[in-house]
Amino acid sequence: MPEPADPGFSVPFVNRTEMRYLAKERGYARAVMPLAPNANHVDVMYMGAYTVLAEATAATPGISIIDPKEHFPIVKDIAVDFHRMAASDVTAEFRLSEEQIAEIHADLERKGSAGYLAEIPMLDANGNLAATGKVTIKLLSHNWNG
Amino acid sequence: MPEPADPGFSVPFVNRTEMRYLAKERGYARAVMPLAPNANHVDVMYMGAYTVLAEATAATPGISIIDPKEHFPIVKDIAVDFHRMAASDVTAEFRLSEEQIAEIHADLERKGSAGYLAEIPMLDANGNLAATGKVTIKLLSHNWNG
Repeated sequence: MPEPADPGFSVPFVNRTEMRYLAKERGYARAVMPLAPNANHVDVMYMGAYTVLAEATAATPGISIIDPKEHFPIVKDIAVDFHRMAASDVTAEFRLSEEQIAEIHADLERKGSAGYLAEIPMLDANGNLAATGKVTIKLLSHNWNG
Repeated sequence: MPEPADPGFSVPFVNRTEMRYLAKERGYARAVMPLAPNANHVDVMYMGAYTVLAEATAATPGISIIDPKEHFPIVKDIAVDFHRMAASDVTAEFRLSEEQIAEIHADLERKGSAGYLAEIPMLDANGNLAATGKVTIKLLSHNWNG
């Protein structure tokens, strides 16, 4: 059964999209954004739903490898390029490599912060590329101050 | 009285944010995104609300200068850089210059399509720059095909 959208947080804006995770593993996430609650005035996926899907798919793998008592995630920037309108649900996935995970852990240990850029292809139900997201995620120590 | 968020369309995703226009004129829009329905798990404005505000503020001035029976707007890409968390409502505005309006009308006449890049500073209630949006809007003829 798909898990609720938020990775341990509770953000009403995200919950309203009814986004669901199809898979969450250490360093990996796959999610689906349903069309029905997120359709625009011409019955294709609205812009904002892509940004939510891209951010969640980008951030969740990072969140999965940190101790939330020690560190927290922020989004530094997000960009979405639109290629093709989607008249269906849209899915996306992102995986941090073992090398990236090791580098993140080393950076958190050494300086209390780490970051990564996630590139997120977003596909319609036929596998067409509807949009591409690029999201910079930062992971910070709770007592980090710049 | 502020107008409803959508510029003639009806997008439930946008309506759910309770965004409102503070001003709409020919080639100009100013809008406010309320914090309450769009707060994240630490009670600051959630990422997705900035993308909605940036897109609406960018697109509305373009929509105001076209005949919807002839042309329609699309978002080609959107990027938002986050500078400072906002624990308040967030406002944004964008104006097309008379030169840009003339150029858009000339392009629509000549080739059935036009476009512009809108840079959108988004300010918290104290006037601090919370985020910057960059949105590419395209205006297309209904019988445009690439």
